[in-house]
Amino acid sequence: MPYAYLGPEGTFCQAALRAVDPDADPLPCPTIQSALAAVRQGTAERAVVPIESSVEGVVTATLDELAAGTDLVIVAELQIPIAFALLGRPGTVPGDIKTVGGHPQAMPQCRSWLAANLPQAEWAPVASNAEAARQTADGRLDAALAGASTADRYGLEVLAPGVHDRANAVTRFVVVARHGPLPARTGTDRTSLAAFLAEDRAGALLQILTEFAVRGINLTTIQSRPTGDRLGQYYFFVDCEGHVDDARVGEALMGLRRVCAEVHFLGSYARCDEGATTHVRPGTSDAEFAAAAAWLGRLRFGRP
Amino acid sequence: MPYAYLGPEGTFCQAALRAVDPDADPLPCPTIQSALAAVRQGTAERAVVPIESSVEGVVTATLDELAAGTDLVIVAELQIPIAFALLGRPGTVPGDIKTVGGHPQAMPQCRSWLAANLPQAEWAPVASNAEAARQTADGRLDAALAGASTADRYGLEVLAPGVHDRANAVTRFVVVARHGPLPARTGTDRTSLAAFLAEDRAGALLQILTEFAVRGINLTTIQSRPTGDRLGQYYFFVDCEGHVDDARVGEALMGLRRVCAEVHFLGSYARCDEGATTHVRPGTSDAEFAAAAAWLGRLRFGRP
Amino acid sequence: MPYAYLGPEGTFCQAALRAVDPDADPLPCPTIQSALAAVRQGTAERAVVPIESSVEGVVTATLDELAAGTDLVIVAELQIPIAFALLGRPGTVPGDIKTVGGHPQAMPQCRSWLAANLPQAEWAPVASNAEAARQTADGRLDAALAGASTADRYGLEVLAPGVHDRANAVTRFVVVARHGPLPARTGTDRTSLAAFLAEDRAGALLQILTEFAVRGINLTTIQSRPTGDRLGQYYFFVDCEGHVDDARVGEALMGLRRVCAEVHFLGSYARCDEGATTHVRPGTSDAEFAAAAAWLGRLRFGRP
Amino acid sequence: MPYAYLGPEGTFCQAALRAVDPDADPLPCPTIQSALAAVRQGTAERAVVPIESSVEGVVTATLDELAAGTDLVIVAELQIPIAFALLGRPGTVPGDIKTVGGHPQAMPQCRSWLAANLPQAEWAPVASNAEAARQTADGRLDAALAGASTADRYGLEVLAPGVHDRANAVTRFVVVARHGPLPARTGTDRTSLAAFLAEDRAGALLQILTEFAVRGINLTTIQSRPTGDRLGQYYFFVDCEGHVDDARVGEALMGLRRVCAEVHFLGSYARCDEGATTHVRPGTSDAEFAAAAAWLGRLRFGRP
Repeated sequence: MPYAYLGPEGTFCQAALRAVDPDADPLPCPTIQSALAAVRQGTAERAVVPIESSVEGVVTATLDELAAGTDLVIVAELQIPIAFALLGRPGTVPGDIKTVGGHPQAMPQCRSWLAANLPQAEWAPVASNAEAARQTADGRLDAALAGASTADRYGLEVLAPGVHDRANAVTRFVVVARHGPLPARTGTDRTSLAAFLAEDRAGALLQILTEFAVRGINLTTIQSRPTGDRLGQYYFFVDCEGHVDDARVGEALMGLRRVCAEVHFLGSYARCDEGATTHVRPGTSDAEFAAAAAWLGRLRFGRP
Repeated sequence: MPYAYLGPEGTFCQAALRAVDPDADPLPCPTIQSALAAVRQGTAERAVVPIESSVEGVVTATLDELAAGTDLVIVAELQIPIAFALLGRPGTVPGDIKTVGGHPQAMPQCRSWLAANLPQAEWAPVASNAEAARQTADGRLDAALAGASTADRYGLEVLAPGVHDRANAVTRFVVVARHGPLPARTGTDRTSLAAFLAEDRAGALLQILTEFAVRGINLTTIQSRPTGDRLGQYYFFVDCEGHVDDARVGEALMGLRRVCAEVHFLGSYARCDEGATTHVRPGTSDAEFAAAAAWLGRLRFGRP
Repeated sequence: MPYAYLGPEGTFCQAALRAVDPDADPLPCPTIQSALAAVRQGTAERAVVPIESSVEGVVTATLDELAAGTDLVIVAELQIPIAFALLGRPGTVPGDIKTVGGHPQAMPQCRSWLAANLPQAEWAPVASNAEAARQTADGRLDAALAGASTADRYGLEVLAPGVHDRANAVTRFVVVARHGPLPARTGTDRTSLAAFLAEDRAGALLQILTEFAVRGINLTTIQSRPTGDRLGQYYFFVDCEGHVDDARVGEALMGLRRVCAEVHFLGSYARCDEGATTHVRPGTSDAEFAAAAAWLGRLRFGRP
Repeated sequence: MPYAYLGPEGTFCQAALRAVDPDADPLPCPTIQSALAAVRQGTAERAVVPIESSVEGVVTATLDELAAGTDLVIVAELQIPIAFALLGRPGTVPGDIKTVGGHPQAMPQCRSWLAANLPQAEWAPVASNAEAARQTADGRLDAALAGASTADRYGLEVLAPGVHDRANAVTRFVVVARHGPLPARTGTDRTSLAAFLAEDRAGALLQILTEFAVRGINLTTIQSRPTGDRLGQYYFFVDCEGHVDDARVGEALMGLRRVCAEVHFLGSYARCDEGATTHVRPGTSDAEFAAAAAWLGRLRFGRP
């Protein structure tokens, strides 16, 4: 079965898919929603979609689509460096460029370069950077922001390499599958979940954070996202350190489950950030949880 | 001096501007960034920009542009109901529609209707809904998602009214000015700020929330946003109840200022949500702060 | 086997013992320490000792002796109203009274009456109120503060009834046994424990309290007590609502066990305060703990 | 005017008074209450009373008497090493000793020695160790537990030196005056206070601790003490690091004042524990408080 990804060919997402599994049968999808739907419906084995950009922040379409159900889980993540080039038809000179297209998140990453070098060009957001390259090839646009490797595929040339404002920009991608046996613990894992509050009230977020803090678990992401019903109705998308098989993470999830209206578990998987280590606060290791449980059992059965 | 807004003519943002001041001289700007820049540079008196949609969540361009400096503050907010129509050239029939355009946030708000009624149409994100209407008028697109009132301006007709999936969708807009004398307290105010953490560590968010909680202040929004330097570097955009002139809010801001690397104050202004009331926990009123300060003064000067 | 109590005959503690079990074989002990030691060493079945006075606070000898080991647990508690009378040899008149004796905690409970009525009398603390009565009978003291019912036993008469300053004073007594099968849950229970901190540091107490708070458990007593090694070295004696068989109490105890150097469990038993109810915060009932555990089990085994 | 102390002559408290001021005119008082009353009523300039023993814990009479009003404050503290000797009339041999007397806190400090060496002797609590020496001199007791230096004053001899179980035992004494100009800050200060809760409820203690924690202030003592009205009604006696003139301590006190029914300030004074240092958490120095206040002032007056 194929692997769905945010296409068309030539996107950074395709590069991520190749890094995950060079032999996977790629299934390009026009939107993040449709890529995840392909897994939900069983027409794809897995999906590779972006979840966070170091420049633009979380990809809300991915968060919201994952959070909408409990049938999908993240099984892996990886980072891809993001380097934009300005692509055009061979022979294009700066003075020719009236329109520049790309994914809506491409422009903010190249804003300073565009302001300095193409101040008069009109910005045209399209569905993906590869799509902008395609529209440039057929003349609907004059230039595209995309990865340099995309040029060949569409018969374009690199008018300017490295037009992104920040060196070291990266995007984190996740591999999504239907909920089934989970990836094994590695000791440097991340767990993702969506927490829907029982009521719209002041201390609810503090209460959620405390469930993690009391068990010594670091959060790596927290985002309030609208449930869509009205302003002020939120769910929280949370990434924390550790694996659901860790005793401390399991206990924190049970705590959330009891204080929230709903908790959607969205996966436990190895972290890709180089050099990341999981801090285990004294008193929160599996061995210490097991020793405390054994002690409690003895107390309850009348043995000091 | 004119009022900048996210144009072109016909956007929901223009409707918001008219609601703020029907007599204001409107200055349409192509992006949120340019609308706010016009105020920064003194070519506009104020700017009206969207900050939060009940469907799509916060408008990150607005948050990031406000948070980038300390020279702009929000001075007012208002809500506009969001109702989409499908607009096309007179005589268009569904079978003719190969492309539908609109602002990137328009599509998710109409996704179910589009899937049910125009499953084959290609989605074309453009800079604004009004721009989609303009491109529809000149034949580059077949149809546009926009407010029904936009049809006349571009010689289009309403092919289908009410194509949004959720009734009661609203967008909150803010009026932004250069930092100067603040709006007076009304008793039902909101304060916005951006908090940049001193270090990337576990308890930092909990610490920020505690500064508010200990003074009985409810948060209405919290968003982690990337600073752009690398994955995992964040600032927090926070809306809380109350006005910077309230003693409890002032003390909480001072607390944040001491524990954060930087705090950007982004305004105190009357809330627009109908029926909103500000809960003042016992012990946190201005009178109680004043009494406690007087008591402390007496203690320090040796009078019991 | 006999029941040990703080003697000699005629103490409030003996009244408590009779209320616990009128048929018990009473074993008077000269100190709280020796009464508890009798149970430890197996020469008494149980001990009845005071733990808290509504006037004088906790009885530190009881706390410290219980906390010193893990072999004793409280199995029941009861309250006894404390009413003091002034006892003397028949024929004694106020002008005769140069010395008044009693347990060290008796004087503070009668201070105002003594100041108003016997301002010149010298106060003589002795080991118990009954001992003061005995010394009054044999002429070493002129009068004793004790319960009125003690008069007969020592051939004294009640010179003045009701000499305590506060009406409604009560003392809480506990019944102590060797750790074995625990009293069954009643739904209105109290659990006692001693928590020894891992290190002498600022946030340690806050951390202990948070282990209870995050699981919605109310504390009814908290006392820091010296471990005797040096100033500033403490253990905490804690009473909380609920029974160790309650899921929320069990989880909190395990949490304490992991963050403390040592936790001594000192019993779960029915509360005696009339009208006491145990507040179970939503999300902390046994049923909710069980549902969350079942959910976690499903997640871990790959079933959404 | 004289200095009141817990007499009679020969107590450890007199040693403390001599250490405070060798030239002070000493006024021995029979109880802690009467020593403090002498200051309240103006018959003594200051009082020296014990507040905490490394063996027996806080001296509740001192806490309760200070907490009862707002007119007295602690102005200094000091530690005295506590070493007990067994005193008797010249020529006494162990076999002669049927009764041993001392202050009620003396016995627990010598319990093991007494059990090993005088297992048959009866323990007689009296008002002070010096009083026990006096009663030993006149034959009412056979031996007394007291400081070795007390022997001469009463014509006794040291039958056994060093009979206390723990080496290094110390007692902390405080110097109490009427509330007036406070001792100047030294940078290593302690502040004492009594906090009376507004209502008897679960989170109240956690709330009090949070007022300190959020401002980075360490507590050195916390004791719940009964108000005497009924079981379960408490006030909290608290010692924290720092001086009321420190900005962070001042703000915490104001916070307590607002959340508590009543707060009695009981003094700020130099700590006597050798090597004690006051940890000032980043963000809580006076300079940082002042900078934050200046920043808030600018914000409120419309200057970014």
